[in-house]
Amino acid sequence: MTIRTLVWGENIHERINEVVRDIYPDGMHKTIADALNRDDAITAETATLQEPEHGLTEARLKETDVLVWWGHKDHGAVDDAVVERVAARVHEGMGLIVLHSGHFAKIFKRLMGTPCALKWREAGERERVWTVNPGHPIAAGIPENFVLENEEMYGEFFSVPEPLETVFISWFSGGEVFRSGLTWRRGAGNIFYFRPGHETYPTYHDETVQQVIRNAVRWAYRPAPALTGIHTAPNVPVGEALEPITERGPKLHKAGEAGYK
Amino acid sequence: MTIRTLVWGENIHERINEVVRDIYPDGMHKTIADALNRDDAITAETATLQEPEHGLTEARLKETDVLVWWGHKDHGAVDDAVVERVAARVHEGMGLIVLHSGHFAKIFKRLMGTPCALKWREAGERERVWTVNPGHPIAAGIPENFVLENEEMYGEFFSVPEPLETVFISWFSGGEVFRSGLTWRRGAGNIFYFRPGHETYPTYHDETVQQVIRNAVRWAYRPAPALTGIHTAPNVPVGEALEPITERGPKLHKAGEAGYK
Amino acid sequence: MTIRTLVWGENIHERINEVVRDIYPDGMHKTIADALNRDDAITAETATLQEPEHGLTEARLKETDVLVWWGHKDHGAVDDAVVERVAARVHEGMGLIVLHSGHFAKIFKRLMGTPCALKWREAGERERVWTVNPGHPIAAGIPENFVLENEEMYGEFFSVPEPLETVFISWFSGGEVFRSGLTWRRGAGNIFYFRPGHETYPTYHDETVQQVIRNAVRWAYRPAPALTGIHTAPNVPVGEALEPITERGPKLHKAGEAGYK
Amino acid sequence: MTIRTLVWGENIHERINEVVRDIYPDGMHKTIADALNRDDAITAETATLQEPEHGLTEARLKETDVLVWWGHKDHGAVDDAVVERVAARVHEGMGLIVLHSGHFAKIFKRLMGTPCALKWREAGERERVWTVNPGHPIAAGIPENFVLENEEMYGEFFSVPEPLETVFISWFSGGEVFRSGLTWRRGAGNIFYFRPGHETYPTYHDETVQQVIRNAVRWAYRPAPALTGIHTAPNVPVGEALEPITERGPKLHKAGEAGYK
Repeated sequence: MTIRTLVWGENIHERINEVVRDIYPDGMHKTIADALNRDDAITAETATLQEPEHGLTEARLKETDVLVWWGHKDHGAVDDAVVERVAARVHEGMGLIVLHSGHFAKIFKRLMGTPCALKWREAGERERVWTVNPGHPIAAGIPENFVLENEEMYGEFFSVPEPLETVFISWFSGGEVFRSGLTWRRGAGNIFYFRPGHETYPTYHDETVQQVIRNAVRWAYRPAPALTGIHTAPNVPVGEALEPITERGPKLHKAGEAGYK
Repeated sequence: MTIRTLVWGENIHERINEVVRDIYPDGMHKTIADALNRDDAITAETATLQEPEHGLTEARLKETDVLVWWGHKDHGAVDDAVVERVAARVHEGMGLIVLHSGHFAKIFKRLMGTPCALKWREAGERERVWTVNPGHPIAAGIPENFVLENEEMYGEFFSVPEPLETVFISWFSGGEVFRSGLTWRRGAGNIFYFRPGHETYPTYHDETVQQVIRNAVRWAYRPAPALTGIHTAPNVPVGEALEPITERGPKLHKAGEAGYK
Repeated sequence: MTIRTLVWGENIHERINEVVRDIYPDGMHKTIADALNRDDAITAETATLQEPEHGLTEARLKETDVLVWWGHKDHGAVDDAVVERVAARVHEGMGLIVLHSGHFAKIFKRLMGTPCALKWREAGERERVWTVNPGHPIAAGIPENFVLENEEMYGEFFSVPEPLETVFISWFSGGEVFRSGLTWRRGAGNIFYFRPGHETYPTYHDETVQQVIRNAVRWAYRPAPALTGIHTAPNVPVGEALEPITERGPKLHKAGEAGYK
Repeated sequence: MTIRTLVWGENIHERINEVVRDIYPDGMHKTIADALNRDDAITAETATLQEPEHGLTEARLKETDVLVWWGHKDHGAVDDAVVERVAARVHEGMGLIVLHSGHFAKIFKRLMGTPCALKWREAGERERVWTVNPGHPIAAGIPENFVLENEEMYGEFFSVPEPLETVFISWFSGGEVFRSGLTWRRGAGNIFYFRPGHETYPTYHDETVQQVIRNAVRWAYRPAPALTGIHTAPNVPVGEALEPITERGPKLHKAGEAGYK
C-alpha cells in the first residue's frame, strides 16, 4: 500500500512574513509533507498556489489518493476551474484533508454547501484538543487530550453540515469550544477537517498534530478504482430493465434522448 | 402559526406539452400550492421561472418560511445570483423542499456539494414508496407503503451526502430501489428531498403525496428569527474574551483588522 | 396542542441532603415541572422512585407524550420491568429527556446500548454551554452561549452512540469539554440528553436551562398515534404479497407458523 | 496485519434440517469462516452455541478482533452473561458483523437498544441488493447491484437506530424494500448488519456475499489497543484539574469517594 498524497500550500505568509518563515523555512506544506512521509504507507509531495494551475493539473490529481489543503490569505486567487476539478476528483473517491484556515477555501465551501464561518481570535492562547470518538481510526494512538500552548482561537457556531462523526473538540483559555475534527463523505470521497494550524505558531511541528494528519490520510484513502460514473445520470432503456416491464403512459423523452441537466 | 410557503415551478412543460397541461392546467406549482393551502397552518403562494428574478426577490424570500422547488427542463436558466440568494436564505433558516427532477436544480447541487446524479427510466412503471422511519414527523399519517401506479423510475446510486435521516425508500417494478425521502440541514435551514412527481403523471394529485409535502413543510418550518449572522466570521477582540486572557506570541492581524476570506 | 409531560425524579437527595432540600424544597422534579407548565402547550406532572411502580404504571405511560428523567443516587432501585415498560413506550413514540446524572439511568443505558460513562469532578466550577446547532428546534431562543457559574464538571469521552445531532457543547474552567446536548431516535421515540443539573446547585432555577428543557419537550413530542406494531415481526403470507409471486425452494416454516425470537 | 476473526454459528438447523445440512454440511459458520480465510489479512475460526460458554470465553474474546454472528432458532439459549461479555468487548473495540436472522440476537438488540423487528416471508423469491454508498469500504469491488435468486424476504420497518451510513438496500420480487447493509459504532466497536443468509438457500456460497463479509471484517477491524477504560466513570480530583481551579460551593461527594452507578 502506498497512499499517494499531495500537500497543497498557499505559500504566501511563509514568504512575506518573517515569523512564519522562521517557523516554516521551506513552507508549511513541506513540513506537513515531511511528517506524512514518516509513515511508510504514505508518499507525500507538495503543490502550491503559485505553480501553473496551482500544481493541480488533471494528470496530477488523477494520481493523487489524498489531498491535504492549507490556505488562508488568498482563497480568492484559486481558479474556479481548478476548484471544480478538485471537487470532481473528491466525488470520484480522492480523500481531502482540510486544515485550519482552509475552512474558507473555495473547495471546502464548494463541498460543504454552507458558509463554513466561525469566530476567531489571534491571541496565542492555550488550546486543549479532546478526543470525543476514541474508536475512530483518526484517533488511533492519540491521547484523550493534548495541548497546543499557543494557538488562534476558533469558536462556534462553525457553519458546516452535521458531520458523519465528531472526532475532536477543542477547549480554549478564553472560554470557547470548537468542533475541531469532523468527517464527511461527498460522493465517494472522504473529507476530514482538522482545526489546528495557525501559521504564526509551530503547530505542524507538534508530534500529536502530525499523527492526527497521518491517521487522517490513512482513513481518507480509498483503494477502490475511481468512481468516474458518478458525474452522469444515465438512462436505463426499458428493454434493459432488470425485471421485465412494459412501457406505459405518456412520455417526455424520445427513445435514446439524454435527460435534462 | 402560519407557515409562509412559496411553491416555485419551472412552468415550462405545463405550457408546451399537451399531456402535462391536461394534468396540470394551471401548472404543477398551482396544484401543489392548493394542496398545501388545505392545511390551516400553511399559506402557500407560487413563483415561476418566467417572473422577474424568477419571482425570488430579496423581499419575497425574506417573507418566505419554506420554499418548495420543482424544475426539470431548464435548470440552467435559473440565474446564479438568485441561486446564491436562495442559498443564503436557507442558511439563515428558510426550509427547502426539493421535488423529483429538482435533484439537478442548481440550488440543490449548491447546497449538497455533490453531483446529485441518479439513474432514470421513463416507462410509467409502478412505484411503491416505503416508510422506513415511521417516527419522523414527515411520515405522520403516511401508511407503511403506498403505490404510484405510473411513475418515472429513479435508481441508485443517488450521489447526495449521507442524509440526517432516511424517511422513504421506493421500489420499482423494473427492479430498482431509490432513497425517496431524505433530510439534511444546511446552516439553520431544513432540507427535504422527495422523489415522486414526473410531470406526465398525475402524481401531485395523489392524496398521500400531498400529505407528505404538507408534513415536510411543517417539519422544515423554523419559527425562530433568521440566523443572519451565519454569513460572517467575526473577530473576538482579546479584551472581550469571555475568560480573561493575555495576548501572547506573534500575530498576523493588527487590532481590528478583518479576517481573510 | 397539549403535550402531556411527566417529570420523573429520583427524589432522594432532596429529602436527605440539606443543601439540596434548600434549593429544591419540593423536589427537583417539582421545579422542573413548574418550569414546563409555564409553556401553554405543555401540561407537566411528576412521578418519583418511591411511588408504586415508581409512578410509571402502564396506564400512566400510555397517557404520557414526553417523559423527563432525573436520577443519580440509586439507579439500581428502578425495577427492571418498569425500565422495559418505559423502553417499549419510547419505541412506540413517547419522547424522553434525560437530564445530567441520568446518563447512568438504566433506561438511558438500555436505549443507548453503550456504557454512557464519562469523567466528573464536583468543584462548583464555571460551565459555559455553547450552542453548536442554532438551527435546531431545541436551540430556539437560546443565546450562542450561556454560563452556569457553579456546576459539576462532566468530561469526555462520553460513551454514547454518535448522535443524530449535537446541539450543545460545554466548556469547563478546569479544562474539559463535554457534548451537553445530544439527540437520538429509538424506534419512533425522540431522545434528548441534556447535561446540566447537579443537585447541589440551583441549575433548574436558571431561565435558560428551563427554556432548553421546554424546547426539548416540544421537539420530542410526536403527535402521531403510538407505533404499537413496532414490537412484532409479522409474517407476510405469500398469498398477500403486494406483487404476485410464486413460492419456490425449500422452507423452514410451515404456513402460518410464527417466526423465531 | 492479521485480523483475528471468530465466526459464531447457532449450529442447529445444520444438524436437524436435511435441506440446510445439504447446503452447509459442516455448518454455516464453517462456510463463512472458509470464505473469510481466503483473505490473507484474515484468520477466521468458529464457535457455536453448543460449546461451553458458547465458545465465547473471556480469553477467546480478548483475542478476537472481529466477531461474526449468525443465529436464528434459539436466540433465547444464549446466556445473558455471555451477551454482556460480548457487549463489553464491542465497547472496547471488537468489531461485530451481524448476519440475517441475527437481527433478533440478544447481542444485537442489546447494542441497538431497539426492537430490531421487521417483516418477513419465506417464499424463495428474488432479492436484488443495491449498493447505495459506493464510496464505503464495505462496498469495495461490489457491483452496483447483485441478485440472490432465492431468498427470504425481509421488509421495513426495520426498527433499528438510524445508522451511521446505509451501504446496501434490497429489492424483493414481492414488492418490499429493506435496508440490507447498515453501520453503527457502539463505544469503540464497529458494527455492521448484513441482511442476506436464510439457511435454506446457498447464500453464503455466493461470491459477492462472501466479498461483502470480507470487506466488512476489514472495515470493522480496529487495530488500536482495547479501550478498556470505557466501562468506568472516573473522578478527576480538583487538585489534578488540567487548569488550576478552586473548589467552590456545596458538595455531595467526599474526597476520593466513588460516583453513583
